[in-house]
Amino acid sequence: MSNRTSIFSYKPGQSIEYVKSKYKIKNVIKLASNENPYGSSKQVILNVKKVIKDIYRYPDSHSKILKNSLVNILSHNSINENNLLIGNGSNEILEFIARAFLNNQSEVIFSKHSFLVYKIISTLSNAKIIETKPRQNKYDQYLGTDLESIMEKISSKTKVIFIANPNNPTGTIIDITDIRNFLKNIPKHIIVVIDEAYYEYSSYLNKTSAVNLIRKFPNVIVTRTFSKIYGLAGLRIGYGISSQKNIRTLTSHRQPFNINIAAQYLANVALDDQDHVKYCLKKNLDGMNYIISTFEKLGIDYLSPYGNFITLNLGKKTKSLYNKLISKGIILRPLENYNLSNYLRMTIGTSSENDRFVDVFSKLLNKK
Amino acid sequence: MSNRTSIFSYKPGQSIEYVKSKYKIKNVIKLASNENPYGSSKQVILNVKKVIKDIYRYPDSHSKILKNSLVNILSHNSINENNLLIGNGSNEILEFIARAFLNNQSEVIFSKHSFLVYKIISTLSNAKIIETKPRQNKYDQYLGTDLESIMEKISSKTKVIFIANPNNPTGTIIDITDIRNFLKNIPKHIIVVIDEAYYEYSSYLNKTSAVNLIRKFPNVIVTRTFSKIYGLAGLRIGYGISSQKNIRTLTSHRQPFNINIAAQYLANVALDDQDHVKYCLKKNLDGMNYIISTFEKLGIDYLSPYGNFITLNLGKKTKSLYNKLISKGIILRPLENYNLSNYLRMTIGTSSENDRFVDVFSKLLNKK
Repeated sequence: MSNRTSIFSYKPGQSIEYVKSKYKIKNVIKLASNENPYGSSKQVILNVKKVIKDIYRYPDSHSKILKNSLVNILSHNSINENNLLIGNGSNEILEFIARAFLNNQSEVIFSKHSFLVYKIISTLSNAKIIETKPRQNKYDQYLGTDLESIMEKISSKTKVIFIANPNNPTGTIIDITDIRNFLKNIPKHIIVVIDEAYYEYSSYLNKTSAVNLIRKFPNVIVTRTFSKIYGLAGLRIGYGISSQKNIRTLTSHRQPFNINIAAQYLANVALDDQDHVKYCLKKNLDGMNYIISTFEKLGIDYLSPYGNFITLNLGKKTKSLYNKLISKGIILRPLENYNLSNYLRMTIGTSSENDRFVDVFSKLLNKK
Repeated sequence: MSNRTSIFSYKPGQSIEYVKSKYKIKNVIKLASNENPYGSSKQVILNVKKVIKDIYRYPDSHSKILKNSLVNILSHNSINENNLLIGNGSNEILEFIARAFLNNQSEVIFSKHSFLVYKIISTLSNAKIIETKPRQNKYDQYLGTDLESIMEKISSKTKVIFIANPNNPTGTIIDITDIRNFLKNIPKHIIVVIDEAYYEYSSYLNKTSAVNLIRKFPNVIVTRTFSKIYGLAGLRIGYGISSQKNIRTLTSHRQPFNINIAAQYLANVALDDQDHVKYCLKKNLDGMNYIISTFEKLGIDYLSPYGNFITLNLGKKTKSLYNKLISKGIILRPLENYNLSNYLRMTIGTSSENDRFVDVFSKLLNKK
């Protein structure tokens, strides 16, 4: 067991409390876990008391109210509630997929340096893991999923392909046209998962979601989350969208009461406040432009970012700069467990968090 | 898939909203899901705002604070945090057990008419299910788990035994001395799960927990929940207690962030208010005595209850009485999916809910 990829391989970002206590710093900022630094909609905070009165009751097993709201939001895609499955985070949807479609006779394909949970859940399902080479540009930077490499690795045993779009931890994106062409050319019995955890952040660039492809390609499962732009990472709620047949298969793997009542209720409140989503999108774009211009000024290599985070290449100085930053109260995410030990992942913070990072980072590089 | 036992076999109690709307009744009471009718500790309600400020952050992957509190509560049992695993409800711990220890080569044993989730998760793990005959008294009433029948069914393929104590849905209990003797006589590689969801309710009769057996029998896994006496069913939180080796094995099957932040924080608050637990115990005992005396007066057969619910035998009138009760705004739980179609399960309610039930039920039987 100890040699296998499991929960023990997953290293969450260092906690604020730990850094406060270790380095005796009062004001610690965490730009490590790609949470929305502006938090959830204020409506969530105003409505939390309505949840509490029913907290001793079991939650609705079918998450009906939330599904109805999602159907409305997704209405232009001919999605109805039978195309939806709610998960304890989108991670749970990914897990249902592995458990429903993978076993020790199957192969699963995903790009090297994509979300670690694919490897964890595939290992738990005893499938053979095929990691494909990422696309690289002329500077030999990792640019995320290469669909051609995936295509080459498809065999008669391939059951599931995981594609994060935008990809975590590299922040890269694949154009929807390329995904459509890819889908046309692969066998229809292979489940293709398009993990859109960061979709809302990429939408400002008119990047299209794969949800539109589900009608034509019933083998596609799209996953989404309330942990990112909706600011509800703490409540654990996400969802999957696919053909009714896939949803029924996945549903048979869930527990009767997998989604807590606070998540069901407050995700619905958050969904209803699209102004907050737009505000966070705008602030993320501003922050991203500021961080990119700083990296350009400092001559720092980074990967093209399409989410709410940016992955920077610090070469041999990575570990020492990570440690120096943390000793100054700024937590980024090291990516050793993604085999990217020369990179750090940085969540775009609030304006003041970004300012502080730029100030400290520039000084550490002796450029200020 | 459709012939298999799965989530689709689980029928939650009818919802209050549905009954209100169907029968045009304003005041509907639900005595169907064994929730604590007195709700959670008031401290939970007072503290909910403290959760909300961190709701956009991922929860602590290790549930450290809650584990520390549980260690304190369980201290006389030499339990430390490495003996604990927190689940998204104790159902999730049960699921980890099935996934860790069962496969298509294994056999799993549990008593007929025990908690349906054992069957659901064992089926999902492709194990062969052996259901043993329950103990019956001279009136041929179902009296729950018969350890001797389980013993007889153990084979070289037996990997897991599930025992709910008290048992849901029958409410019956097994004496801890009998469990100890049983454990002495079975092979040590067989995992024996003692599901103590209703333990706190049975404790008023000085019924001892199996937690004390874990040191001597490292193959025992005890599960507990915050969904019952702690009044947090809506938040989804439970835990497992076992040897460090078992806990590590089970942990490898969990997601990095399976426990939401509200559950972690508020379970801890609930645990701290043992006065509320004592109050609910007392009220449950009063209500139980009242319902039992009513059944005695009405000549209704029932099974000996050791939880916060009572299972009554209405013979051929079961379905019609269930329907009549629901049409009067009182929801009990039919037990057809437990192969107990002559029985209804009734949660002990608040004093006024119990009064209303007794009034309506007596009239339906023309005894008032």
